Formats: sequence, structure tokens, C-alpha cells
Amino acid sequence: MRGSIRLFLDGPLASGEAPLLDPAQAHYLGVVMRRRAGDEVVVFNGRDGEFLAQITMLSGKGGRLALARLLRPQEAEPGPWLAFALIKRAACEILVQKATELGVERLLPFRAERSVAALPNLERLAAIATEAAEQAERLTRPKIATPVGLADLLAAWPAGRPLFAAIERRTAPSLRSRNIQIGLLVGPEGGFTDRELDLLALSPFVRPVSLGPRILRAETAAIAGLALLTAPPGDATI
Amino acid sequence: MRGSIRLFLDGPLASGEAPLLDPAQAHYLGVVMRRRAGDEVVVFNGRDGEFLAQITMLSGKGGRLALARLLRPQEAEPGPWLAFALIKRAACEILVQKATELGVERLLPFRAERSVAALPNLERLAAIATEAAEQAERLTRPKIATPVGLADLLAAWPAGRPLFAAIERRTAPSLRSRNIQIGLLVGPEGGFTDRELDLLALSPFVRPVSLGPRILRAETAAIAGLALLTAPPGDATI
Repeated sequence: MRGSIRLFLDGPLASGEAPLLDPAQAHYLGVVMRRRAGDEVVVFNGRDGEFLAQITMLSGKGGRLALARLLRPQEAEPGPWLAFALIKRAACEILVQKATELGVERLLPFRAERSVAALPNLERLAAIATEAAEQAERLTRPKIATPVGLADLLAAWPAGRPLFAAIERRTAPSLRSRNIQIGLLVGPEGGFTDRELDLLALSPFVRPVSLGPRILRAETAAIAGLALLTAPPGDATI
Repeated sequence: MRGSIRLFLDGPLASGEAPLLDPAQAHYLGVVMRRRAGDEVVVFNGRDGEFLAQITMLSGKGGRLALARLLRPQEAEPGPWLAFALIKRAACEILVQKATELGVERLLPFRAERSVAALPNLERLAAIATEAAEQAERLTRPKIATPVGLADLLAAWPAGRPLFAAIERRTAPSLRSRNIQIGLLVGPEGGFTDRELDLLALSPFVRPVSLGPRILRAETAAIAGLALLTAPPGDATI
């Protein structure tokens, strides 16, 4: 559900700066959204806050903005970390888009034994995350880590951050947390192997959780889990 | 996250029956999943429970099963109803798939003033819901209603069933419910118009809810809302 046009920019944002648009951004503004010089857009860069800006030049090759005023000062956006097994491309892209909308702070892809063989296109995933952050009115984009194996993921996990592991077909407590300094881990289609389950069981910060009685696809488990972890405490109960 | 192959069948399931497979199902089993006569599959029809079955014949034109034994007797699967504004095709299909995985009982598409103009392909949506129900190990498929206007949707809504309306950019209580005899309503991209908001405000069973501080796409709001509504009460809080 969308407000005004928001763009993530790489360069610095500060009064007096005249940020440049790259050709893709210029195409998006001019051709897709039919904006032109004089129109307003909202911009952010993940470091300097969110600004209202005016388009001063727009062509097929690029464009230029003038910053009008600061709308929101930069704030940290702490959120859950999501560790996810590499799954098929379409599902992986939905996962990255929805996780970004739901406020994930870091995306940590890992290879599970039943993961798809192909490595993801990290540039494309970053572009999807950027577009989702623009649309969700975030002030930051999630960081996307380079894929590693499950063992390496666990070995490098910060010990103070609990990691809820969505392990299917196990009796486990269900998920709810008011702490966002946590992680969520979801496996590949087909689930974890016994060896991987042993690895998880040996990690003291891993807490198996249940996402309910149904069997969820991997990307759905990620989205549903993040929805539960990031929802405000409920007061609309009936 | 997948177990054995499950198929939804249209015909009756009972000891002594020898259910037929249509060409698409035969293709799926034989070509996609490389099964052949003698292999086992799990079948359900939404009325007679879930059965273990054996493939007795499989060709390019169809196939035949023999029912081996009842695995789970039929049970009602009450769940939330999801009323959703018609959105773009890809988003609509994700919504139907994920809502089915999350246990939705009825899917009620409606036309909002900012809905996309094209009518959805209801047959394709039904096929997506069927496939999701197979994969999620449901015993039923959700019913998908014919699209109506928002006013007609509200006029026909059963008064005893609260309808949580995800209305963006409003201060509203957040969503949590242990009652599944409820509905969730999500609007189109761009949100509801003032006239539609008035219509919602006049409906006594409608309760505005918030899904959190972020701006969610329509289909994400549906998925996240259903995750909150259908999750077991949390005991993995930290």
C-alpha cells in the first residue's frame, strides 16, 4: 500500500547537495511513473535520513534532484535477522521482498544439504530488497550476506542473539517474541537432513519453534515467522 | 517443506473405489515426479478424508489408483475468511497460495475503487489453491467466491463474524486473535478511497487493525495478517 514515490540513492544527502539519478532511476521516474522536472520525490540513502526532493533535470540518460527539506532524520532500524536456506529463484525473491517489507535487518542465505544447487544472483536480490525498502518506507535496506554453509553460519552466529529455528514436523514451542534482537532460521524445501538437525541441536543459541499445525513452504515460513516476530503486541484480541 | 506426494481428487474416496487420475495429474506423477505403477501417493477430496493409495496404472492420458487405507478421517478445517481487493495477477496468485498454506477457509475477492481493472482467472486461482492445499497437508481446499464490489461484500457479511480491516496509515489496534471465526480484509495497492473508508466505518462488524509500523504491500498484509491470526499462542517468548 503505497504513498509517494521513494527512491534509494547511493550518494550523500545533505542541504546543498544535488543528487544524481542513474539511468534506471531516471527511466523509472520519467517513463514508468511519468514524472518530470519540477515534480517531487522522497529520497533516502540509509545514512543521512529521508528528504523531500524536487526533480530538476530528467532525461533518458539520468537526472538530477534538488533536496528541499529533511522529512525524517536517520534512525537505526534494528530488526530480526533471517537465515534462510537457498531455495528456488522465484521463492527466494518473494522471500527477500517480503522479509524486507517486514523489517528484517540482515538476510543470511545459507546452503543446506537439500538446497538448490544454483547460487542466487545477489545483485538481483539486492535490487529487490532496495525496491521493497523504498516501498515499505524504511530508512535502511537490509544487508544481504554472501551465502555460506550451515555449519559456517552457526559458527559465526553472535552468541547473544537467540536463533529461532523453524523445524517442521517437530513438537516445539510456537513463536512469539517482543525482542527484535533475534534471528529466524528456515530450511530448504524438503527440510533439514538428520545431520543438519544434529548440528542445530548442538548450537546453544538455537531454539526450535513451531509456526503452527500446517506445513509451510520455506518462503512462507520465513514470511509468517517474521510477521509474528515483528508485529506489535496484540490488543485487538477477541 | 514437503512430505510425500499428495493429490486432490474430485471423485469419491472409499474402500473399494479405484479413483481415476486426469491427464494433468498423470503427467505430474509420471513425468514431473517420476512415479510409476506400484508407487504410493496420498489423496484427499475435501469430503472423505485422506487415503494412502497405490498407483495401478499410469499413462500419458490418465491413470488409476487403488486405495490402500484411510490415513486421516475427514475433519472440518475452520479458519479465517480473507476478503481481498483485486490486485495485479502475480501478487494475487502469491496471496492465494500463501493464504491457503496459512489455513484460510474462504477467499473473498472484491473490487475496490483502486483495484486493477482485469478480472482474475478464477480457474487458475482455484488450481493454485488446490496445489497449495496438497502441499500444506490440508484436508480441505478454501472456497473462492466470485468477485463482488466492496459494498456487496459488506452487505452479505455474516454479522456474527468480526472482520478485521487492515487500513494503512491509521492508528488502530494491532492484530491478534485466538478466535478463528473471523475475517481479515485487505485493500488494493494505493489503499482504500475515502468513500470506501466511510463504508467500512459504517459496518458494525468491521474492526480496523494495524499490522505494524511498516507499509506492507497488499498481498504481504494478507499473508502477515493470516500468520498472526492463525499462529498458536506463543510460548517461545524471550
